[in-house]
Amino acid sequence: MTEDPTPSGLLLRQGNPLGGRVAQAEMRASNMGLLLRHLRSQGGRSRAQLASETGLSKATISSLIAALAERGLVREGEPVRDGAVGRPGLTVTLDGTYVAGVGLQINVDYVALTAVTLTGTVVRESVLPVDVAHLGADIVLDRVATMLRRTLASLRESRTDVVGITVSPPGVIDYAAGALRFAPNLGWRNVPLTEALSRRLGADAPPVHLENDAKLAAVAEYDRMARDGIRDLLYLTGDVGVGAGIIAEGRLVRGWSGFSGEVGHLPLDPGLTPCNCGRRGCWETVVGLAAFLRSAVPEGDSLRDPARPIADRLLTLRARADAGDERTLAALAAIAERLATGLGILVDVLNPRMIVLGGYYGYFREYLLPALEAKLEARLIDEGCRTLLATSELGLTASALGGALLSLEHVFDDPTVVAGR
Amino acid sequence: MTEDPTPSGLLLRQGNPLGGRVAQAEMRASNMGLLLRHLRSQGGRSRAQLASETGLSKATISSLIAALAERGLVREGEPVRDGAVGRPGLTVTLDGTYVAGVGLQINVDYVALTAVTLTGTVVRESVLPVDVAHLGADIVLDRVATMLRRTLASLRESRTDVVGITVSPPGVIDYAAGALRFAPNLGWRNVPLTEALSRRLGADAPPVHLENDAKLAAVAEYDRMARDGIRDLLYLTGDVGVGAGIIAEGRLVRGWSGFSGEVGHLPLDPGLTPCNCGRRGCWETVVGLAAFLRSAVPEGDSLRDPARPIADRLLTLRARADAGDERTLAALAAIAERLATGLGILVDVLNPRMIVLGGYYGYFREYLLPALEAKLEARLIDEGCRTLLATSELGLTASALGGALLSLEHVFDDPTVVAGR
Repeated sequence: MTEDPTPSGLLLRQGNPLGGRVAQAEMRASNMGLLLRHLRSQGGRSRAQLASETGLSKATISSLIAALAERGLVREGEPVRDGAVGRPGLTVTLDGTYVAGVGLQINVDYVALTAVTLTGTVVRESVLPVDVAHLGADIVLDRVATMLRRTLASLRESRTDVVGITVSPPGVIDYAAGALRFAPNLGWRNVPLTEALSRRLGADAPPVHLENDAKLAAVAEYDRMARDGIRDLLYLTGDVGVGAGIIAEGRLVRGWSGFSGEVGHLPLDPGLTPCNCGRRGCWETVVGLAAFLRSAVPEGDSLRDPARPIADRLLTLRARADAGDERTLAALAAIAERLATGLGILVDVLNPRMIVLGGYYGYFREYLLPALEAKLEARLIDEGCRTLLATSELGLTASALGGALLSLEHVFDDPTVVAGR
Repeated sequence: MTEDPTPSGLLLRQGNPLGGRVAQAEMRASNMGLLLRHLRSQGGRSRAQLASETGLSKATISSLIAALAERGLVREGEPVRDGAVGRPGLTVTLDGTYVAGVGLQINVDYVALTAVTLTGTVVRESVLPVDVAHLGADIVLDRVATMLRRTLASLRESRTDVVGITVSPPGVIDYAAGALRFAPNLGWRNVPLTEALSRRLGADAPPVHLENDAKLAAVAEYDRMARDGIRDLLYLTGDVGVGAGIIAEGRLVRGWSGFSGEVGHLPLDPGLTPCNCGRRGCWETVVGLAAFLRSAVPEGDSLRDPARPIADRLLTLRARADAGDERTLAALAAIAERLATGLGILVDVLNPRMIVLGGYYGYFREYLLPALEAKLEARLIDEGCRTLLATSELGLTASALGGALLSLEHVFDDPTVVAGR
């Protein structure tokens, strides 16, 4: 059963309306997906357990498992006694060692690629410095295509089936058109990324999807946090641009046209600094990476040189902070002060369980979190709504990882996207 | 199949993980619910259509329809030809004329009750002026219980089955405890509303649920808007307190502990007026009803008299605005100016398709909307993210209606809550 794309009724906490006309084959694919999700969330179990837990007949379960096993998505392992009389059953476990998703992150000055298997192993990871903001979309996409072709070829050699590629530009997605609407910090508008990349990759390549970078980083963090029962999470990118990925009750909040989480443009700078988006006084002009570098690094200092890798520059600044450098510490204190105002707003609107600060914020955990925690604590309305704060440990390529994970989700929607082996 | 309460995996756009151990009876109840939702979203159809659309066998469909019909939830009507050879089938249609949900809204100075049948008809509606903020919870709940008992008795007389009562206080809900955590404008904290009301109503009464007033008003508006394809909606209460109900892709966003939408406490008042929540400079101190009355009504004017019904006072102010009264117009212009700042933030964070302004804002549509639209238009980042604005036509009792509708949702989760007739 698939979710109804246009339910006319009320919203619901649980359960979804049935879809329209669902063909038998689609029904079967959907049940395969449900079984796969069940194995992921509940862990390995016997056929008898699966039948009793899902309400599907044992014959149906057997047939679905055979179809999943043929695709390398499940395997049957050691015997399990589940209280039933008779022969012990074999445990059916989620597999997918040879099924991978790819995430491709395009940022202002680099491109990152991550491939993850269904079992959660990162099997490819690479970062390529590219002056994206100045080269123009065509040249950038040529390089991205080369990077992808190499990865796909090497995964093919190791007999791994890539089910999808999710590309994440730092901007807003037009999902229906498969295009990037607007990426202020690249200066790109209305770039048909899906078509442009698919054409370069050729007809044999896996399908290309698009998703916003902040949303994908939230997906990557959620994949870790959900294990601890966190279902409401906000991820804040800490780059030249600042954006939020919002997850509410385990679901990505995209907004009606993909513009959710454009928090970098909240009107929180009383100095009304001009922003790349066309407005003045946007939050990212005072808490973004460019603002931090401007205030932390004296003019003429080599750390202002955009040709030096950003990770090196941030590590140097971290070392300066640790050595007690006053200018660096003052810059961090100012960032914390201005971050707190915006985070307070996001807490009031969304009541997330956890806010994860990504990007450059992750380099300054000890200088930012205590100050932010104190400020949020001071404005707590009630004991019952405390938000946890963390910095991301996923570094600057969290969106590539999130893209790989989201690519894999298509397998759970329809396991028949994986070819039989 | 029920939704997994604690999925450990990734979030998903479509489909839900399977639940844990689902008993056959639960499975059957859940399939009855799915069928009912399907009829609601797709309209009446034949058994053959239902079987082909859901993938369930014709025998199962027949058995489920019999169980639903026995409860008065569906009926079979005129013959329908669906292209198949042979006898035409009968159209199965959603019924529920004698199944109702009740919503009970508690506000600062009134209590409102609405009962709605599954067919969408409002069958009971009443508003009782109660000085809730001064009487204390016990006396208020005694009056609420009396009001509910009368309604339940009269619905019973007309052979209507009430499946649930949803109570909405203007505050934050502790869902697990069935309690009101905090309602700043009532001064109530940690009131065990569910238990206190259930005890007063007795063992035979329908189950009592709690939901926040802004969230329920959003549910009521969504019920209307969803027909036009709007799935991302924000409702803003316009009362002494200001709160938001957020619906994203057809789902209520509650936040991890029910504190989502506490937008009345955004730090948007540079004058730092003290707020009932304990903070200073909250948005509602400059855009709430009290702030509007203070600036629109001269001291000594009888419109400041809290004993006069608020609806009358608002209509008088509306008449003054229409007559060109400068003080009223200036107050409205100031409200629009300050409203715009907060709405801009909500647009950037959530990207709703529609923002509905409820409460007192509804009385001043022509004075608020054009100014707000112009201000939001001026800060549009992209053509693709325009948010529509509307005022609510549901008046001050929208939450009671939303409560009645939410009570009815339990029927779709489990139609066996309705007794056989």
